[in-house]
Amino acid sequence: MSSTATQTARADAPLLLREDAGGIATLTLNRGPARNALSLGLMAALQDALDAIAEDRAVRVVVLRGAGPAFCAGHDLKEMRAHPGREAAAEVFRACSRLMLAITRLPQPVIAQVHGIATAAGCQLVATCDLAICADDARFATPGVNIGLFCSTPMVALSRAVPRKVAMEMLLLGEPVDAAEAFRIGLVNRVVPAADLDATVRATASRIAEKSARVLAIGKEAFGRQEELGLEEAYAYAAEVMTRNMMLAEAGEGIDAFLEKRTPIWPA
Amino acid sequence: MSSTATQTARADAPLLLREDAGGIATLTLNRGPARNALSLGLMAALQDALDAIAEDRAVRVVVLRGAGPAFCAGHDLKEMRAHPGREAAAEVFRACSRLMLAITRLPQPVIAQVHGIATAAGCQLVATCDLAICADDARFATPGVNIGLFCSTPMVALSRAVPRKVAMEMLLLGEPVDAAEAFRIGLVNRVVPAADLDATVRATASRIAEKSARVLAIGKEAFGRQEELGLEEAYAYAAEVMTRNMMLAEAGEGIDAFLEKRTPIWPA
Amino acid sequence: MSSTATQTARADAPLLLREDAGGIATLTLNRGPARNALSLGLMAALQDALDAIAEDRAVRVVVLRGAGPAFCAGHDLKEMRAHPGREAAAEVFRACSRLMLAITRLPQPVIAQVHGIATAAGCQLVATCDLAICADDARFATPGVNIGLFCSTPMVALSRAVPRKVAMEMLLLGEPVDAAEAFRIGLVNRVVPAADLDATVRATASRIAEKSARVLAIGKEAFGRQEELGLEEAYAYAAEVMTRNMMLAEAGEGIDAFLEKRTPIWPA
Repeated sequence: MSSTATQTARADAPLLLREDAGGIATLTLNRGPARNALSLGLMAALQDALDAIAEDRAVRVVVLRGAGPAFCAGHDLKEMRAHPGREAAAEVFRACSRLMLAITRLPQPVIAQVHGIATAAGCQLVATCDLAICADDARFATPGVNIGLFCSTPMVALSRAVPRKVAMEMLLLGEPVDAAEAFRIGLVNRVVPAADLDATVRATASRIAEKSARVLAIGKEAFGRQEELGLEEAYAYAAEVMTRNMMLAEAGEGIDAFLEKRTPIWPA
Repeated sequence: MSSTATQTARADAPLLLREDAGGIATLTLNRGPARNALSLGLMAALQDALDAIAEDRAVRVVVLRGAGPAFCAGHDLKEMRAHPGREAAAEVFRACSRLMLAITRLPQPVIAQVHGIATAAGCQLVATCDLAICADDARFATPGVNIGLFCSTPMVALSRAVPRKVAMEMLLLGEPVDAAEAFRIGLVNRVVPAADLDATVRATASRIAEKSARVLAIGKEAFGRQEELGLEEAYAYAAEVMTRNMMLAEAGEGIDAFLEKRTPIWPA
Repeated sequence: MSSTATQTARADAPLLLREDAGGIATLTLNRGPARNALSLGLMAALQDALDAIAEDRAVRVVVLRGAGPAFCAGHDLKEMRAHPGREAAAEVFRACSRLMLAITRLPQPVIAQVHGIATAAGCQLVATCDLAICADDARFATPGVNIGLFCSTPMVALSRAVPRKVAMEMLLLGEPVDAAEAFRIGLVNRVVPAADLDATVRATASRIAEKSARVLAIGKEAFGRQEELGLEEAYAYAAEVMTRNMMLAEAGEGIDAFLEKRTPIWPA
């Protein structure tokens, strides 16, 4: 798909849908006929949506899913071949990396709702999201090696989510793993019948949406920071985070509610 | 439980019990009615016991367990609410982090013997111990998010023990995982019927107690150090550790005993 | 086995066999009667073979296996006791660490084909190889603690391949894990009946040999480099790697072949 075609598509139907309800923002990749390939346009739309959500205090949790038969088939290879220069390639991979970092750094937890295939940068999206729930028909792969383009950026997220030899196998062989295996290796948190996928993700997102958004943001940020530190530094940092957290009205209310066996009412 | 109550409890019954036999020091958290909540008093008692064991050459392995219906329910929330200032909170989290580092740095291996619940800092204790064996009725959780106080220090140990998405799920949702799941995700080494828990832990501790304490200490220290290094530095460090280890009488005796098919007699 | 005996063995039969076919170099540890113990001679032979393969553009993938009843029983304890000085020990552990780094840095993927026992440095070889496939009768252990010589260099590879508590258990107890457990913990990628081991490894190696050797080398190098970086640096690095990869003829041919639904023909 050429860049012009992408813009046409953008004019006709939005590349990305956003729907908000009950503190849950649902983002739907909306290039179903292209199995939601991450064109520059779609990546830009997703980046914009995440940037807006980061500032949106009404959103407590984000669900990321795909329209059509697949979650996401990775980069838009037709678009990439139509723009073969080094700068065009660099733009794609920088935009993709920026997008993944934006998910990791988003204050709100992000749940990947996966059906059909999640391949290459699509598999990277799953590995990058904080949680992932998939249908029993889902399949995951990092097949770049088969087309002469090793999945080196997906590797960054994949190798941090699954055991080393499992990541190597997926990357070197490029073969799909099924939903049960994705659960076994830690790539997804849960597998459900396809018919139950939407309801299960809704229910999980709703349970997260009941928490304090400020406290979720503290925890998610701390997770990313502490894991890059040595043990002693990580503890010094985390102890300071918990001390600051303890000074918030949320902790006072939450602990009092717990001791009084009642539901907490989070400060606005 | 107020600080005064804690001091009363300390006067009546020790907060921590220590029993030594056959090279095994068994430490029992002894606040059963409070589900062994880690009051400042209990943390101090545990820290003191670990500091003493670190210097005690007769101890080859440590077992950590809880009296009453639970392993450990985390921090003492009543005590914390009774001392709401920033300095009091900081003292709790610093004491907790110091305690966890003391377990990691203790020369002797530490086995968590878990029954009932292990939540928040109690789950952190399990994640921090070198090994963990639990009863089939054990449950594990990092539920701080539910009371407005994200489990950011437990996260340090948890995220280093289990796969990333599993840790995120436990931290963001705060829901319990059962014993079988704790085994699947690597949080515990073994699950046994509740009736067999004590005997299984004893048997495992005894097998470790047969090893050379000096050699165990070398290995445990090396584990913690090498994992914070890059691969090349880790190998340079570990090769030097093994060379020093090879120069000890323990290695000479151990290898000779192996080649002669006899049981080694470790130097005193 | 003394050093003299080793040299005699080297004169009689090669310590290491190499066989090349279809882009697959098969290296066979050939000290079957000594369960392929890694004498200085065998380590030197393996290092030489890897150094040669690194420069050999005809080799796309390496299989490492053992002759006789076992994959590899670790270091040659008889040889080590025959040369008890500090320098001799240091030489062994430095040679071993250099060998492991050579496997990690080899441009070609390396598959461990494991039958019988893989213990101590033999278990380290399995953990170090990019992929491992084992027979259902295989057993794995890091039993150094039992002979007074903690498996500190095997620990470097093992602790990067399996969950932390699992690694600790193997190292502190020194007891064997069977093939099914090795699969569960991520130490091997696949377990097959002993009778099918050779054919399964051949088939897997053949599928890798169909890929572009240059692209495999890019991916394998990137894996090792990015995992030692923080997330942001890892993405900056990986995005640059993918951009360079995209500029290769391999990517152009691979993507075009994919879009045209034909088999790619890799540039020589």
